[in-house]
Amino acid sequence: MSYICNDKLVISGAAGAIGSNMVQAALTMGLTPNVCMYDPFEKGLQGAAEEIYHCAFPGARVTWTTDIAEALAGASYLISSGGAPRKEGMTREDLLKGNAEIAAQLGKDIKAHCPDLKFGVIIFNPADITGLTTLVHSGLAPSCIGTLAALDSTRLQTALAQHFGVAQNEVTGCRTYGGHGEMMAVFAGTTKVAGTPLTDLIGTDKLTPQQWDDIRAHVCQGGKKIIQLRGRSSFQSPSHQSLLMVKAVMDGKGYEWPSGIYVNDPDNGFNHIMMAMDTTLDKTGLTGKMPTGSDPDIAALRESYQHLCKLRDEVIEMGVLPPLSEWATTNPNLA
Amino acid sequence: MSYICNDKLVISGAAGAIGSNMVQAALTMGLTPNVCMYDPFEKGLQGAAEEIYHCAFPGARVTWTTDIAEALAGASYLISSGGAPRKEGMTREDLLKGNAEIAAQLGKDIKAHCPDLKFGVIIFNPADITGLTTLVHSGLAPSCIGTLAALDSTRLQTALAQHFGVAQNEVTGCRTYGGHGEMMAVFAGTTKVAGTPLTDLIGTDKLTPQQWDDIRAHVCQGGKKIIQLRGRSSFQSPSHQSLLMVKAVMDGKGYEWPSGIYVNDPDNGFNHIMMAMDTTLDKTGLTGKMPTGSDPDIAALRESYQHLCKLRDEVIEMGVLPPLSEWATTNPNLA
Repeated sequence: MSYICNDKLVISGAAGAIGSNMVQAALTMGLTPNVCMYDPFEKGLQGAAEEIYHCAFPGARVTWTTDIAEALAGASYLISSGGAPRKEGMTREDLLKGNAEIAAQLGKDIKAHCPDLKFGVIIFNPADITGLTTLVHSGLAPSCIGTLAALDSTRLQTALAQHFGVAQNEVTGCRTYGGHGEMMAVFAGTTKVAGTPLTDLIGTDKLTPQQWDDIRAHVCQGGKKIIQLRGRSSFQSPSHQSLLMVKAVMDGKGYEWPSGIYVNDPDNGFNHIMMAMDTTLDKTGLTGKMPTGSDPDIAALRESYQHLCKLRDEVIEMGVLPPLSEWATTNPNLA
Repeated sequence: MSYICNDKLVISGAAGAIGSNMVQAALTMGLTPNVCMYDPFEKGLQGAAEEIYHCAFPGARVTWTTDIAEALAGASYLISSGGAPRKEGMTREDLLKGNAEIAAQLGKDIKAHCPDLKFGVIIFNPADITGLTTLVHSGLAPSCIGTLAALDSTRLQTALAQHFGVAQNEVTGCRTYGGHGEMMAVFAGTTKVAGTPLTDLIGTDKLTPQQWDDIRAHVCQGGKKIIQLRGRSSFQSPSHQSLLMVKAVMDGKGYEWPSGIYVNDPDNGFNHIMMAMDTTLDKTGLTGKMPTGSDPDIAALRESYQHLCKLRDEVIEMGVLPPLSEWATTNPNLA
């Protein structure tokens, strides 16, 4: 069995459903034999590690630790699904504050223990905010931290394939941008169904305005359908797509979906935010540009941005992120 | 993304933890794009399928159905984790009868819907019995049905690596044979630890007789440690290793662990049973021979065989398997 590289990959939250799936999938993909499983929940972590040992991946050197300093030491790659889930009685703000604090600590830990991290993917919710908070506190360059945004686009692809009764890969160019939440911008202009532009289909008998609205609403509700059907949040697709992001940086062979990226683009009116843009992942990490789209698409993107700014400002208000004027001091790479 | 073949692979029990993991891992391994998910539990099955669609494996054509005839039609490969778990108040016999009946029906369904199946792996417990029962009723050749037996050997490898503080792949040649249960035969003679025969280490300060007994007992208890640590049965390692068995038949590149195989070898005193032997998996399917071992190893194998005969005879007594004298009528390939 051959691996793409020998660099240390840290899976944070490795005792959980997403994280433990990720360790198995990372080794199955042959990313690196050098995987470190981190989680504060020791018992579950050890159990997840035993499972991986019993898989007996040839040449794998999988370690596990509840010590974040040991986990991050020498790490080149990191995926963190290690947020707290929403519990009964928690408000949306409680969840936002709790996970933003976890992200801030993760950023500080990266700064202290693995300042040479090549690439990290933050996937715990709200990912646009936790990714941004991690980046600010980590001191890393914006090319080194991204968030998982692909699932909105793959859900759009799935829904359109089901609606039109075509194979999933006949639906191409699906793109959602902006926030990874109900305020995301579902772009219509880039998608083709079996070669026909989606914009030529919307409003016809083949896809009535109501049907298109329903599909967009379904996509914006994210994993809600999975929860209804499986009785649990999605964990396989987040695991798989996060690993493909890391793989793209390891092997330089590209990644086909949008990622969440730090954006500071005053010319286009997007400042100090993390959100899905038209991105590229390669050996230099993550780069992005303003997506092209119709006027309604771009208007939806601006609305999504405004929503994210409000969340970001709440986190600044909570004291978990510094005021915008201090970001360049906390992280000179954001200057 | 390229796949090894285009043959139809059916995952039975695809709504469950093992089965849903298997679909993801089969596609990640690139076995075939043509995967059919079967489970009687429609809601969970649809949810698991949605997860796979959101992974967006390039070129994948994943279908799902609650109709076993539709699932098996045209199938070349099958893995079934679709047994019933032990529930409160059930006796061991209840579980045995319930799962043997499921296996008998699976065998009949194979005979009816996919008599050209190239290879099937049966992994629901007790796998030696469910695999045997499936084979008898399926009418297939013994080379076409195997059971997952590897995890006992990979657990032995894991435990020895942890005991000696060496990398897992420095522990080579781990072999357990016979039944996949507490009566399995843990062979000592084939294993080396960093090049040193295990038999040279047993009884020294490096591995006292007590320590070796403890390791063997731990291995025989199978996934008990996983249940204690994770609060659930193992699902990742059974998924991974079952798929490697199928992969070996698809690509002919071999499989490094023992598998459960139908044995009818009067010369060696093993008759009409399924159990782990010294096996080979390649494009012709599963073949096996009597393992070599020390006298105590072979004695343990015979004891394990006797235990399996008792279980088999119970299933014959229940009427779920025909009497031995009728097996060649039910399945001419066993003549």
